Amino acid sequence: MSSNMIRPGKTTKESIVDIADELFYQKGYEKTSFSDIAHEVGITRGNFYHHFKSKDDILASVIERRLENTAQMLNQWQEEGQSASARIECFIKILIMNRAKITLYGCPVGTLTTELSKLDHPLLESANEVFLLFSNWLEKQFLALGHKEQAKDLALHLLARSQGVATLASAFHDEDFLYKEVETLKEWLHQYH
Amino acid sequence: MSSNMIRPGKTTKESIVDIADELFYQKGYEKTSFSDIAHEVGITRGNFYHHFKSKDDILASVIERRLENTAQMLNQWQEEGQSASARIECFIKILIMNRAKITLYGCPVGTLTTELSKLDHPLLESANEVFLLFSNWLEKQFLALGHKEQAKDLALHLLARSQGVATLASAFHDEDFLYKEVETLKEWLHQYH
Repeated sequence: MSSNMIRPGKTTKESIVDIADELFYQKGYEKTSFSDIAHEVGITRGNFYHHFKSKDDILASVIERRLENTAQMLNQWQEEGQSASARIECFIKILIMNRAKITLYGCPVGTLTTELSKLDHPLLESANEVFLLFSNWLEKQFLALGHKEQAKDLALHLLARSQGVATLASAFHDEDFLYKEVETLKEWLHQYH
Repeated sequence: MSSNMIRPGKTTKESIVDIADELFYQKGYEKTSFSDIAHEVGITRGNFYHHFKSKDDILASVIERRLENTAQMLNQWQEEGQSASARIECFIKILIMNRAKITLYGCPVGTLTTELSKLDHPLLESANEVFLLFSNWLEKQFLALGHKEQAKDLALHLLARSQGVATLASAFHDEDFLYKEVETLKEWLHQYH
């Protein structure tokens, strides 16, 4: 972590959520303690408890934040992409955009749902909402490409493919593999437009 | 867990490794404590420490056990499969064979490497050896199918595909998705033989 303080222009609560988000991603949810977060934010545990009563409360806020950020990113791709297939390519290319972190920590969405599924955690369903934002948006793009019957399956298929790439890239800290698979995904997409 | 005792025909040490293997898989490595394992095995912490000094020691033995079991399974597939493509299908079909656990806990190999990667754990490299057993074996099958140049890439690609399927199937506890994707993988394989 580069920061060790409340982030400029953010409230203490927002800073806690920002930093918890990064720590949950980088170390895992179970491994991250209240103290770890308080230490990184640079506040006392007392001040911390004023904002959040439990780690689950923080997790709920982290998921909410991820949902907002994802929705915003998808809106941006929707506006910027010249065509449905160009928009799907935006999705594929996040593997490359985020390669430095993915090769260390995997995908933030998939690794959180994996952990919550093992913990049988009540917030798994909320965490899955991030996946659903992506898959619904991808489905819309495949519909626009004329794949009426298959659109949902294609969306979930692509989501799974990107998850698999992230898992192996993080196990072997291997960027080359990630680049190769992105090319394979683009070729795959080419069949559908 | 169904058992709460030293397993029939096994030493205490073997029972510890068996049960740690299942708990690491079902709950995650970080979440599983010494006490959890001792409790499931039905031994005192003192007896436990006689066999293993640290959780990392147990993890090393669990990985060793997984390597042995995987090598044994691959040998069996090698003997039973009538052709290289039939052998690759054995690999694809483990998603279905293990669907009950995969839809709850994901893939034991990928979810462990994901966790160890985040923990920056010194045993990540050992855990990756399980992936390498699979990918080297798959590479051999693709070579037998005549894909000289591509064999390694195809092996890693298939490994990643199966990881992605397991990740989404566990997030949504969705067996239907798993079955659909297994069909898609078989169709994909069909291009290469």
